Amino acid sequence: MHMTKKRVAVAGASGYAGGELLRLLLAHPEVEIGALTAASSAGKTLGSLQPHLLPLADRVLEPTNAETLAGHDVVFLALPHGESGPIAASLPDDVVVIDCGADYRLADAETWAKFYGTDHAGTWPYGLPELPGQRETLSGANRIAVPGCFPTVSTLALAPAVESGIVEPEVVVVAATGTSGAGKSSKPHLIGAEVMGNVSAYGVGGVHRHTPEIVQNLAGLVDGEVSVSFTPVLVPMPRGILATCSAKLASGVTAADARGVYEKAYGDEPFVHLLPEGQWPQTQAVLGSNAVHLQVAVDEAAGRLVVVGAEDNLAKGTAGGAIQCMNLALGLEEAAGLSTVGVAP
Amino acid sequence: MHMTKKRVAVAGASGYAGGELLRLLLAHPEVEIGALTAASSAGKTLGSLQPHLLPLADRVLEPTNAETLAGHDVVFLALPHGESGPIAASLPDDVVVIDCGADYRLADAETWAKFYGTDHAGTWPYGLPELPGQRETLSGANRIAVPGCFPTVSTLALAPAVESGIVEPEVVVVAATGTSGAGKSSKPHLIGAEVMGNVSAYGVGGVHRHTPEIVQNLAGLVDGEVSVSFTPVLVPMPRGILATCSAKLASGVTAADARGVYEKAYGDEPFVHLLPEGQWPQTQAVLGSNAVHLQVAVDEAAGRLVVVGAEDNLAKGTAGGAIQCMNLALGLEEAAGLSTVGVAP
Amino acid sequence: MHMTKKRVAVAGASGYAGGELLRLLLAHPEVEIGALTAASSAGKTLGSLQPHLLPLADRVLEPTNAETLAGHDVVFLALPHGESGPIAASLPDDVVVIDCGADYRLADAETWAKFYGTDHAGTWPYGLPELPGQRETLSGANRIAVPGCFPTVSTLALAPAVESGIVEPEVVVVAATGTSGAGKSSKPHLIGAEVMGNVSAYGVGGVHRHTPEIVQNLAGLVDGEVSVSFTPVLVPMPRGILATCSAKLASGVTAADARGVYEKAYGDEPFVHLLPEGQWPQTQAVLGSNAVHLQVAVDEAAGRLVVVGAEDNLAKGTAGGAIQCMNLALGLEEAAGLSTVGVAP
Amino acid sequence: MHMTKKRVAVAGASGYAGGELLRLLLAHPEVEIGALTAASSAGKTLGSLQPHLLPLADRVLEPTNAETLAGHDVVFLALPHGESGPIAASLPDDVVVIDCGADYRLADAETWAKFYGTDHAGTWPYGLPELPGQRETLSGANRIAVPGCFPTVSTLALAPAVESGIVEPEVVVVAATGTSGAGKSSKPHLIGAEVMGNVSAYGVGGVHRHTPEIVQNLAGLVDGEVSVSFTPVLVPMPRGILATCSAKLASGVTAADARGVYEKAYGDEPFVHLLPEGQWPQTQAVLGSNAVHLQVAVDEAAGRLVVVGAEDNLAKGTAGGAIQCMNLALGLEEAAGLSTVGVAP
Repeated sequence: MHMTKKRVAVAGASGYAGGELLRLLLAHPEVEIGALTAASSAGKTLGSLQPHLLPLADRVLEPTNAETLAGHDVVFLALPHGESGPIAASLPDDVVVIDCGADYRLADAETWAKFYGTDHAGTWPYGLPELPGQRETLSGANRIAVPGCFPTVSTLALAPAVESGIVEPEVVVVAATGTSGAGKSSKPHLIGAEVMGNVSAYGVGGVHRHTPEIVQNLAGLVDGEVSVSFTPVLVPMPRGILATCSAKLASGVTAADARGVYEKAYGDEPFVHLLPEGQWPQTQAVLGSNAVHLQVAVDEAAGRLVVVGAEDNLAKGTAGGAIQCMNLALGLEEAAGLSTVGVAP
Repeated sequence: MHMTKKRVAVAGASGYAGGELLRLLLAHPEVEIGALTAASSAGKTLGSLQPHLLPLADRVLEPTNAETLAGHDVVFLALPHGESGPIAASLPDDVVVIDCGADYRLADAETWAKFYGTDHAGTWPYGLPELPGQRETLSGANRIAVPGCFPTVSTLALAPAVESGIVEPEVVVVAATGTSGAGKSSKPHLIGAEVMGNVSAYGVGGVHRHTPEIVQNLAGLVDGEVSVSFTPVLVPMPRGILATCSAKLASGVTAADARGVYEKAYGDEPFVHLLPEGQWPQTQAVLGSNAVHLQVAVDEAAGRLVVVGAEDNLAKGTAGGAIQCMNLALGLEEAAGLSTVGVAP
Repeated sequence: MHMTKKRVAVAGASGYAGGELLRLLLAHPEVEIGALTAASSAGKTLGSLQPHLLPLADRVLEPTNAETLAGHDVVFLALPHGESGPIAASLPDDVVVIDCGADYRLADAETWAKFYGTDHAGTWPYGLPELPGQRETLSGANRIAVPGCFPTVSTLALAPAVESGIVEPEVVVVAATGTSGAGKSSKPHLIGAEVMGNVSAYGVGGVHRHTPEIVQNLAGLVDGEVSVSFTPVLVPMPRGILATCSAKLASGVTAADARGVYEKAYGDEPFVHLLPEGQWPQTQAVLGSNAVHLQVAVDEAAGRLVVVGAEDNLAKGTAGGAIQCMNLALGLEEAAGLSTVGVAP
Repeated sequence: MHMTKKRVAVAGASGYAGGELLRLLLAHPEVEIGALTAASSAGKTLGSLQPHLLPLADRVLEPTNAETLAGHDVVFLALPHGESGPIAASLPDDVVVIDCGADYRLADAETWAKFYGTDHAGTWPYGLPELPGQRETLSGANRIAVPGCFPTVSTLALAPAVESGIVEPEVVVVAATGTSGAGKSSKPHLIGAEVMGNVSAYGVGGVHRHTPEIVQNLAGLVDGEVSVSFTPVLVPMPRGILATCSAKLASGVTAADARGVYEKAYGDEPFVHLLPEGQWPQTQAVLGSNAVHLQVAVDEAAGRLVVVGAEDNLAKGTAGGAIQCMNLALGLEEAAGLSTVGVAP
């Protein structure tokens, strides 16, 4: 007998994260798409805002509130940072609530206040199943905080090296990102003519809000302090992150050692893929997919390990990661509705 | 009882059309992917050439010949123009052979010779199911010529108007295309630095090889002559075609008349979608999807009907169209393995 | 003895047209840059808004009004449509006022009202020196309306054919444009993630405001009616327009005839260049330059002349054209401060 | 009395470096453009290869040899690496020869052999005038090796910090580059459809040929060893480099200290510009210009200095830097023919 499909709502269906959730949910065999809600776009058709979601084009967006979100098995929150708290509080405990925003990611209230400037909403189970023990935590969870796009790929790229001790826990991450990571907002520096043919850095010097999240993830793997120098770089493409991560090698570590550590860490992971030697990650290869591609190199002259990771910031970096968490929470196959096939060229 | 899956080979698996066929076939519920063949890339892994096709990364490309292609229910040919003939001749009659190249599209040998400069290989059933009577022709066919990318969207955009007589049969098509349409070939004008930040026209004045194919399609809908002025324009994106098509309106035709003609023509079509009034097609909305989005306008001052169509040149314009034909040929559901959901932004 | 430099103000220095005026004026040997004014950006440094204009980085923007614009020989208005009228009225008659906006382009008040919905400000000499007789009109003029970006290239591409009668006066123009043409405004459809990897049409069916301007230009060349079907297409690049223009050929006109007409028309023009046979215009070749590149083809089968023109919408299409007009108005060398060298790749 | 103009030849006029040299030389008041030479393109017009250089469109390329390059005051070599040696040897000693290739950049023959695999041609004065003492070395020099594009911006970004000792001499550089840096070559991974919408890393792990050049530059500033971890990242734009550079801060160094070091180092430099606090470099702002924009940040939590630099790889990174060197060699004004104004958007 076939299981009853799970009824899923998406709050924030007009934005990029919401759109990607719906794109993936439309291909998910075990779900039925319920309420689609929005703020200022409530009352509009989804087709007028997300014309790529043709099967849902005639659906009308409802306002985001406890009433419209009631009666679902799963509610995805794809809201601006700071808005998940109140709406989450209004949902029953037995509903699976998955927050794609930052509100419940950080464990430390003081760090939250420093980086976000508001009161800390709380801490939910962190939705990165590839971290040690995390898959078990997420199985059956009713509240899940989906990681940020940069922390997902940066953590996956660095965790095996940091945890195994083949590098010193002082890492440098420079991550090129497509502009959808900034959301569907009309900020002057995100206008097409400003971003095409242009590359710029922002949030330099440790002030980007994803910095403490990467620190938290890596610090959980070792005794003692971890330092993270993180610089995001805006590049002219809609989607994708390429993270170049490095750290000083521990004494005597060889290239073969490093490769071995990554093979062991990810050999059984469905969505993290260490490329064959000599092949380097590219974002196009993971576009629309839930896969992260990694490659490692040892720079003997500089004495550093360099790990490069490619991710689709909207897929594995947000919506795909969220659905992977949903699958675990509901006891479905972890890869249900998700793909490791990218759309290229 | 579940049907046995069909065994499918792809000749030309290293190129863009071949890659897109495989991307779509990986999601097709009724097929099993058999031989993958190539010319100069034979012996390499698919992963080294098409890193986005992760589930097939370890498959090794074989040479393209009758032996490697034997034993399949379906063989897709995704070869350079002119190369399909010999290999097609070597395949048994009861195998479904679907040619993504131009070799068997044109009915007129003289026109073929004029535009391609070689001997005419022949004429196969034309794989555009949305043309009148064509769906029936394709059902059960064993040889199918997939339309060119420009002819697909141009024909779909213009056929209802031309057939119904609301326009004079002298049409103008200017179609912007992403650069993947030129194939994965290292021509100097296709280098990244040449195409980014740049728009250019080519094949101007009726000399592009897709011109006679559009003429053939439209001429089949009316008595008398049809003229087509077709100009392709290369724009800085990997995929997608936006075709702006126009023709002089017949006397007395209103905007409502024109809309009515298109609603009637495509109301039941699964992959051709007339957008709501006021909404214009964009290529991003059909990226990776098998849908064509259309919109129509009547320019009263100029006395012309303008129809704009968006298509993914590699999907509905090549590989998706090819799989739609395969489904018809095999008696599967026409939409099996195909989607109307795009990948955006 | 060296002439005293002309003192020049730019109203609207924070926008794209204003920025390009300043980029070109910085290289102009006969001018001194005076007041830089803006609306909401008044009080900011130019460097914070236009970081590419390094020599002016510390200049502070003033509000746009009669006081700040007083005391200049030339005032460029680079303001949103509809805002030039009041400020122009406040400037002395003997100041050369050059409006980069639409306010004074159209001769017909009714057409203005239909397309812009406001009262007609008036009509100034039209700043396209390449039109017959227009160079004389502009020499010594104190008020000049700079043409729109699409009308400049479309008119230059079509005028010789229309005027000489080698085509029927019913023209079709499909013009691909970079997104800077829409100004530095944060409209949702102009966000980077919406325009990159995307092509869309807009203002379809004759409703774009540049349509009546093209009609006006071409109608001035012939007796009788002219019809223009104009469709702008937004493509993923910051700058540049490629216009594909066509019209039905008059009986008996050959390719050589057509080429001859264009050679004669533009042989002596400093900024309009007919490319050698076989070479087609591309926008990259005119980036930042004041040149327009043209090529013509005769499509015998379709019976149409096709003319393709490339222009930088911000340079010859706005700021460069404006400076060319200033040179004429001031009696300077027409090409002073302007270049036919593009920035490529 | 006006000086006689210097006669300048460009060997390799068909490529990107050659094209940019000519674009800049066309605007240089003190030079006359002489021979333009090429290899496989000899015999073609420059207009067919570099259509943006309209004033030189009819010039025919000659073969590159001692005869065609004879009779010039200056010869620029813009040739593939390894080809400068033989042609340089054939030119008289009193001709100023400026090599845009790598052949004469490295002082150490063993390092050359390790990274380039061929015999070392020799070492010429290194064309980065902003390095201590280098301006004097270049004044009157007859042989100059122009730095690589990555070393120019990376060295300028890091030199003040390394020399002053405010950081430890172990630096990490991750530099995003437009694709023109790879030259006008038709390599498969540089096809438009491969680079648009895509970001990838290459030469990871210290194997990129610009690594030893950065090491050499920084090592010249300090006693003792310098280590450089350098990763280039290919991004979808034609031109521009954004280098994100970091190193561990020495104990007690504040943000004000760091800013002071850079203000002192570059306060008088015409082409290196420290942006105002709070403003970050972007490549668009230096497109086509000879300026490098820098900004510095102190990351207290991570204990690192982060310096971001933007450069046009073809301008200051190659051709502009070469002309700056020519000006010094000839005793002209250092900034002659060069600009700090970028082309944006």
